[in-house]
Amino acid sequence: PPCTDFDMAYFNAYADVGIHAEMIKDRVRTDTYRNAIMHYRSLIAGKVVVDVGCGTGILSIFCAQAGAKRVYAVDASDIAVQANEVVKANKLSDTIIVLHGRVEDVEIDEEVDVIVSEWMGYMLLYESMLGSVITARDRWLKPGGLILPSNATLFMAPVTHPDRYSHSVDFWRNVYGIDMSAMLPLAKQCAFEEPSVETITGENVLTWPHVVKLIDCYTISNQELETISTKFKFQSIMRAPFHGFAFWFEVAFSGPEILTDSDVLPSISCSSNTQLSDTIQRKKRPHPSEALILSTAPEDPPTHWQQTLIYFYDPIDVEQDQVIEGSLTLSQSKENPRFMNIRLEYVSGGRSVVKESIMR
Amino acid sequence: PPCTDFDMAYFNAYADVGIHAEMIKDRVRTDTYRNAIMHYRSLIAGKVVVDVGCGTGILSIFCAQAGAKRVYAVDASDIAVQANEVVKANKLSDTIIVLHGRVEDVEIDEEVDVIVSEWMGYMLLYESMLGSVITARDRWLKPGGLILPSNATLFMAPVTHPDRYSHSVDFWRNVYGIDMSAMLPLAKQCAFEEPSVETITGENVLTWPHVVKLIDCYTISNQELETISTKFKFQSIMRAPFHGFAFWFEVAFSGPEILTDSDVLPSISCSSNTQLSDTIQRKKRPHPSEALILSTAPEDPPTHWQQTLIYFYDPIDVEQDQVIEGSLTLSQSKENPRFMNIRLEYVSGGRSVVKESIMR
Repeated sequence: PPCTDFDMAYFNAYADVGIHAEMIKDRVRTDTYRNAIMHYRSLIAGKVVVDVGCGTGILSIFCAQAGAKRVYAVDASDIAVQANEVVKANKLSDTIIVLHGRVEDVEIDEEVDVIVSEWMGYMLLYESMLGSVITARDRWLKPGGLILPSNATLFMAPVTHPDRYSHSVDFWRNVYGIDMSAMLPLAKQCAFEEPSVETITGENVLTWPHVVKLIDCYTISNQELETISTKFKFQSIMRAPFHGFAFWFEVAFSGPEILTDSDVLPSISCSSNTQLSDTIQRKKRPHPSEALILSTAPEDPPTHWQQTLIYFYDPIDVEQDQVIEGSLTLSQSKENPRFMNIRLEYVSGGRSVVKESIMR
Repeated sequence: PPCTDFDMAYFNAYADVGIHAEMIKDRVRTDTYRNAIMHYRSLIAGKVVVDVGCGTGILSIFCAQAGAKRVYAVDASDIAVQANEVVKANKLSDTIIVLHGRVEDVEIDEEVDVIVSEWMGYMLLYESMLGSVITARDRWLKPGGLILPSNATLFMAPVTHPDRYSHSVDFWRNVYGIDMSAMLPLAKQCAFEEPSVETITGENVLTWPHVVKLIDCYTISNQELETISTKFKFQSIMRAPFHGFAFWFEVAFSGPEILTDSDVLPSISCSSNTQLSDTIQRKKRPHPSEALILSTAPEDPPTHWQQTLIYFYDPIDVEQDQVIEGSLTLSQSKENPRFMNIRLEYVSGGRSVVKESIMR
C-alpha cells in the first residue's frame, strides 16, 4: 500500500523522544517483553529476528542479548536513525541491522525465525499497526516461526464512574453559587463524545468482561481487521449508575501451539465475529506476570495504555442482575485508516441507545 | 484588523467546555477576580461594564451581582452562545448583554465605566489577548474608568531543576542496563527546544526575580507589545546547576492611581524596555491574597498557568554570588501573532549562549 500523509503524520509522532521514554518507562510493558524474549531464548539464540516498529531499538537489543544471530530492526519513523546510533554505540552493528522504512518497503533477503513487535495501540487496535506485523509475517516468517506476542484479546465491560461524571458534568450545576446548568448539554458533548483514555480500577467494573476479539497473530489477516463486530450480553453484579463501557486488552507470549495451552490462555469459547460469545467468568487471574501475559486490565497494575472509555451522555441506573445487551462494531476509518470508528448499540432496562464515535 | 485563520483557531479552542471548567476550577484565579469585583462594587454598582473575552460569562455575572447597571459580555468564541444561555437561565438578560464577536467588530452604543477581563496567557503575553483589552479601552472606556486588572508584571529568574533534567535526559544513560547515550542530543532537543509550561517551587529559583515588563493597562499600547526587550543581571544566592529561566506573572486590581500606591505594588524601579532594571529585592510578599494581587509565582499556590520554563540543553554550574547577565526579547511571531518568539542571550562564568524558541 502507498505511504499516505496519514502514515507520515503517524511516523512523525514517533520521531519525538518523549513518547519512547514513556513507553520504555512503562515497566509492565518493557519487563514483560524482556521476560518473554528471555523465556524464548532457546528459540532466539542463533536465529534471525525481525523487530517490527523497533523505535529506539530496545527490543532488538534484548533479542541480541538473548543470542540472536541477526536482528532486523525496522521502523519507518526517524527514530530509526537514533536506533542505529544506539546499536553502534553498543557495538552491536554486526548483529542488529536497522532498516529505516516501512515493512512494506524494506528488503530482507532471508527468511526469519522470529518476529517481535510492540504494536498495540490504545484499545488494542488504534493506530492499526498490527497490519505491519501481518505484512512482516507474510513476507519473511518461516513456517513454524515464533511471533511475540503470539495472540491478543480485546475486552469490554460496563462501568460505573460517578466521580468522572460529576467532575465533568455536575460541576456546572453550581459554580460559585451560580446555576450554570445551561452548560450541561455542551459539557456532556465535549466530555463524552469521543473515546477517553484514562485509568479506572476494578471497582469501576460492573461485571465480568466480554471478549470483543481474540487475535491469533499467526493466522489473523488484514482483511479480518477492517471490521470487527461482536454481540455482548452482560449481567450487572451490582446496583449502580451505568456510565459507559471500558475497553482493555491483554497479549500473551506463547509458541505457535498456544491456542490449546490452557495454562497460558484462559479457556474461553472463541468469539467469532458476529456471534454472541460467552462472557469470560473471571475478573482476576492468579499470577498474570508469571503467565507471560501483558495485561492492561483495570484490576492489574496500570500501564501507559490505561483503559479506553466510551461514556454515555447520561448514566443509566441498573439493578443487580440487570441485563445489558447489544452489539459493537469497530472499523477502520475510511478517512484515515489509522483512526477507528466505533459503533455501539445497547439495550438496558427498556432503553435502547446507539452511540457512534471516532478514535482519532 | 481582519479576523485571520489563526484567530479562528484560537476562538475555536475556547469553544470547548473543558478549558472553561479548568479556568473556573482554578480558585486562585476565580476567587481573586470575584474578590476584586466585590472590592470595587462601589465603582461598579449602577455602572456600565464590558467583560472582554467573557467565556461562560462568570465574571459578567459577578459584576451583575456587584450591582452593575449593564454588562456587555463579549466573546468571539462560540462559548458566547453558552454564556447567553447561562444569562437567560439566571434571569439576568436585562443586565447582561452577550455579544458574540470580536471587540474589534461588535458595537456598543455607549461609553463604559469599567472593563473587566481575564486576558492573561501562559508567560503572561502568550495568545496576545491583551490587545483586545486595549481595543475595548480605546473604543469605549470613559476617562477615569476602571480596568480590572489594572496592571501586570512579567518576571523571570534563573532556576535549577535537576529532577526534570534527569527525568528527560539522564534517563537515557542507562536503560535496562543498556547505554542509550546516543539518544542524548535528540532527547535534549525534544525536551528543551520549546518553552515548557510546568509547575516549579520556590526551591527551584536561584535568586530574586527580574521584572521583564511592567504593564499599566490604562496606558499600554498595542505597539508596545509587539516587541519587549530587557537586560537582566542576576546574582545566584547559591551554588547549583543552572538549568534555565522560569517566567511567571502577577496582575494587580487597583484604581487608575495604582502606580503610586505602595500598598499594592512593590516599590520597584520601573523597567523601561531596553534598560538594565534593578532586580526586585524580595522573593516573598507578606499577604498576596489581601493585596488584590493574582500571583502565579513559584512560591505562591499553583494556578492553571503554572510557570513557563526555558531550559538550556546543558546545565551550567554556578557558584554562590556568580553573576548571570544577558538580555531577552519577546516578540509576536510574524507567522502567527498569537505565537511568541523568545530570544534569550546570557553570559555566565565566561560562557555565552543564545537560545531562540517559539511558544506556539
